[in-house]
Amino acid sequence: MAVGLGPISTLHPVPGFELGIASAGIKRPGRKDVVVMRCAEGSTVAGVFTTNAFCAAPVLLCKKRFLGPVRYLVTNTGNANAGTGEPGLANASAVCARLAELAGVDESQVLPFSTGVIGEPLPVAKIEAALPAALAALGPDNWAEAAAGIMTTDTLPKGASRQFVHDGVTVTVTGISKGAGMIKPNMATMLGYIATDAKVAQGVLQDLLRDAANKSFNRITIDGDTSTNDSCTLVATGQAALPEITQASGALFGALKQAVIEVSMELAQAIVRDGEGATKFVTVQVNGGGTHQECLDVGYAVAHSPLIKTALFASDPNWGRILAAVGYAGVPNLDVSKIDVFLDEVCIASRGCRAASYTEDQGARVMAQEEITIRIELGRGDCSETIWTTDLSHEYVKINAEYRT
Amino acid sequence: MAVGLGPISTLHPVPGFELGIASAGIKRPGRKDVVVMRCAEGSTVAGVFTTNAFCAAPVLLCKKRFLGPVRYLVTNTGNANAGTGEPGLANASAVCARLAELAGVDESQVLPFSTGVIGEPLPVAKIEAALPAALAALGPDNWAEAAAGIMTTDTLPKGASRQFVHDGVTVTVTGISKGAGMIKPNMATMLGYIATDAKVAQGVLQDLLRDAANKSFNRITIDGDTSTNDSCTLVATGQAALPEITQASGALFGALKQAVIEVSMELAQAIVRDGEGATKFVTVQVNGGGTHQECLDVGYAVAHSPLIKTALFASDPNWGRILAAVGYAGVPNLDVSKIDVFLDEVCIASRGCRAASYTEDQGARVMAQEEITIRIELGRGDCSETIWTTDLSHEYVKINAEYRT
Repeated sequence: MAVGLGPISTLHPVPGFELGIASAGIKRPGRKDVVVMRCAEGSTVAGVFTTNAFCAAPVLLCKKRFLGPVRYLVTNTGNANAGTGEPGLANASAVCARLAELAGVDESQVLPFSTGVIGEPLPVAKIEAALPAALAALGPDNWAEAAAGIMTTDTLPKGASRQFVHDGVTVTVTGISKGAGMIKPNMATMLGYIATDAKVAQGVLQDLLRDAANKSFNRITIDGDTSTNDSCTLVATGQAALPEITQASGALFGALKQAVIEVSMELAQAIVRDGEGATKFVTVQVNGGGTHQECLDVGYAVAHSPLIKTALFASDPNWGRILAAVGYAGVPNLDVSKIDVFLDEVCIASRGCRAASYTEDQGARVMAQEEITIRIELGRGDCSETIWTTDLSHEYVKINAEYRT
Repeated sequence: MAVGLGPISTLHPVPGFELGIASAGIKRPGRKDVVVMRCAEGSTVAGVFTTNAFCAAPVLLCKKRFLGPVRYLVTNTGNANAGTGEPGLANASAVCARLAELAGVDESQVLPFSTGVIGEPLPVAKIEAALPAALAALGPDNWAEAAAGIMTTDTLPKGASRQFVHDGVTVTVTGISKGAGMIKPNMATMLGYIATDAKVAQGVLQDLLRDAANKSFNRITIDGDTSTNDSCTLVATGQAALPEITQASGALFGALKQAVIEVSMELAQAIVRDGEGATKFVTVQVNGGGTHQECLDVGYAVAHSPLIKTALFASDPNWGRILAAVGYAGVPNLDVSKIDVFLDEVCIASRGCRAASYTEDQGARVMAQEEITIRIELGRGDCSETIWTTDLSHEYVKINAEYRT
């Protein structure tokens, strides 16, 4: 059902970063469900994590450890190790300790990630038994296999890669992500791993990732549910033969920033395109807001409305439902007579009413597309925000009524 | 599909209040879609209305006029007269003016209500043509017929009635409501009409209605969408042979207040029971909150979560999804280790983890019921709130993908 998401594109290896995949048989025998990543000594790591108060045990450990030094990341699917209390923390720690022992590093240099069912004990023994095979499989060319290894209800693996050349040196930014439901701003169910061979201090890297996340992972929503396990990391291995990159590095910093944002946006949009039951990829663009927050409030009211989402599923240009959602978004002193709404380039509502020029045929033509932009002009300021979402289909209900998160 | 909603119960006539139903053929020829209500001279009227910034033309007129004196209420289904700008206001006014002319009252004494498709011009001529028949049909015994006349996607008419005796005088409170989707706190898609023969000044009546709405109509949610047309009115005809009731009336005031609250709660819960595609009637009770607002934030996070709603549809005791929703409700400094969650009397999560005593069988037994209470104990204060909602079924998607609001 994925909308406009094809086979995974070429994912360039990142010098200093290796990936190894193995099978622990957590949910199904033989399924590759454990991914180990190794970063070169001296790597820096940035991280953004779920804002859910019930964040999972691995998230708690990651937050303590990611400032480094970090040498390994270990991910399992099939079990989120969330809602598991103190035993959950001990289990996450045990997996890290075993990996550290096998790899000859300190346990604190290992970051754990889990995704899958909430509230069941982590099958530590199964995961530990798979670690030697994952370590043995480590290699720089395994990005695509790792993208498949971190999937849960995803129907397709997700990856993105960019390269640029500076002073004759090629710099690579490559990433993978997973997530298809429980997707809302602030890192929902998704896991994201991005690596670059640029050399970047942790503080600068953290700013880069936060900025990129606020243009990508924090601007997508499928069902408005924020998961307990969302994490995204950006690793800089420093293996490229270039000086350390800082905000003062001019064009070099700009090129890196752009590459990180582009990879993040492609990964985030891929999650929406593969949204549970999605048949449409919908961009909600809100312009003319007095503040960024009110643009986001309007955008999410539209993106979360089950009535709009079912109308999108039905390809029904139901502009009344869009106006109603804008109206209840909670924007103070909203002057509805200044609001215009567009489906792609078709003006459907002008000054708060049905546009005089609008015909049902025009709306139906846009709604029939797989990719649709809903543009809302608030006419009260200069702020804009863009978020991405999906429709709400029969299939979404089926998947979530039958799948045990 | 309505959950636990049977044939409409006995609706006692309210002296001084009459209802008349007629057919204007707005959506379908022959369907009774126009309801006129007449209140005796000297009646007072309280009203609560949608908070949607795009409130419909009739809501704008009602808000101007309901402080009175009011003699007639006129309702049409099939067209919401919302998103219609100045022409919409003129159309609502025209219907009122025609009714006023036929009835020999001033136009300002008529309150208009509309529900149905947003953004289409109100078919004024059709409605006006039906007014003489509606006026001719006026009578005190037509509550049930009026309840059917205001339905849109409702599958059953909704009504409730209470009586109490004071000093040998019987006082009646009777009401009807409609609404099945676009239901969220603050008067969503619903129309409600309640009348009593008690004599109550407008200010006192308004406090009574606002208090009742905050325990009923403002505590229900089906899909989180707030409509442009929600209105609820409480009419006091003053025909009962009792002195005027004020807050100082002691037991008499208490009895009236209780009757108004009970009627409001029964009408509000009937809307949820008839929620679009509903297969479950779900009470979300949040206790131990530091503030009422945080109880509501947690309750609505749970009640709006598509993941919880689909789990309810599947009768899946997925307590992890409930904890996750509590965790993202935005309660500041939430200590998850103090939180307990119950399905009816079964403790499913204790101190933020799966309860040691809990078995899947216990959870599955509760989830198999048509009526379920999710109780969340926050353990941080003395505030409580209760809201009512439904599951999210295939049928909801089908109804909203096919119906043009």
